[in-house]
Amino acid sequence: MPYIPLSEKLPGITGLLDYRKDTALPIRQLTQILLRGESTLTEGERELIATVVSQGNECKFCTAAHTAAASILLNDDNIAEKVKADIDTAPVSNKMKALLKIGQAAGRNGRLVTEEMVAAAKAEGATDMELHDTVLIAALFSLYNRYVDGLASVTPADPAFYNRLGNILKDKGYLPSENRYAEL
Amino acid sequence: MPYIPLSEKLPGITGLLDYRKDTALPIRQLTQILLRGESTLTEGERELIATVVSQGNECKFCTAAHTAAASILLNDDNIAEKVKADIDTAPVSNKMKALLKIGQAAGRNGRLVTEEMVAAAKAEGATDMELHDTVLIAALFSLYNRYVDGLASVTPADPAFYNRLGNILKDKGYLPSENRYAEL
Repeated sequence: MPYIPLSEKLPGITGLLDYRKDTALPIRQLTQILLRGESTLTEGERELIATVVSQGNECKFCTAAHTAAASILLNDDNIAEKVKADIDTAPVSNKMKALLKIGQAAGRNGRLVTEEMVAAAKAEGATDMELHDTVLIAALFSLYNRYVDGLASVTPADPAFYNRLGNILKDKGYLPSENRYAEL
Repeated sequence: MPYIPLSEKLPGITGLLDYRKDTALPIRQLTQILLRGESTLTEGERELIATVVSQGNECKFCTAAHTAAASILLNDDNIAEKVKADIDTAPVSNKMKALLKIGQAAGRNGRLVTEEMVAAAKAEGATDMELHDTVLIAALFSLYNRYVDGLASVTPADPAFYNRLGNILKDKGYLPSENRYAEL
């Protein structure tokens, strides 16, 4: 039961972004730039960062939602699951492994990102902007995780819900849109 | 030494918001709405929430900056220090004590905000919107804390720096402005 009155039709983050639309807009815009804007990382790779950060913060709603979005965008149901189980042995590039470890650390606490982790990512070809974006994606999902869990929004149990939400995130992105959650 | 090339004249968050201005804009807009927009909490009270969250995340730059901003806005150098030392005995209202504890918990992890904490705040007269905003301010400063520390931005040692920054946050707010940091 949420701590504030949220629409029963809009679980997790969806009801919170509907509750106060003026604060929702810049959150949505920031997410759209970072996860769907121009980048040398694919949309699927960026969703993987969101996934490991949400997993580290134990936010079940966000972890399931971005696992679904990553799986749909990568056209592979296993990669996100393998990344969550063990970054080192997951089927992603060495650069992504290094960036995922930085994102995971930053999501726990920024001070956990070490020079060695950054050097390892740079040795695998990570650019300054990729490092910047990885840390800011981790920071943004740390915001989402706290927003979702701090107000006790509802976490649906049905996996099909997250598949529907993942498809909305793939097809419509993160900006506000008419009848956004009609298919939810 | 920051992990990416940031202006030496712009320590802490200031250089990061200058590094990528397209992502900085929605972060600034969200902060302006939450910390300076219309609210039943004063600007000083909202800066106190930002302060305890930053302290909990051990972000020295953000803690010092928002301690300064809160002190200037409350026109009292002791309140923020006392809140950081012990919320229970600090000279703030019972409602603010309850909200500060919720913000502090949410900043650590959203799952740490309990029904009891929310009931205590409501018993002291906290509204749904105040609860919402407290959690979202905690979530937003969890973003800032990770952004600042995750890229190893510079933390000035001179207390006068934070007093100057606090005055900029009081006088200019959080939106972009010309020659914003001329006095820094």
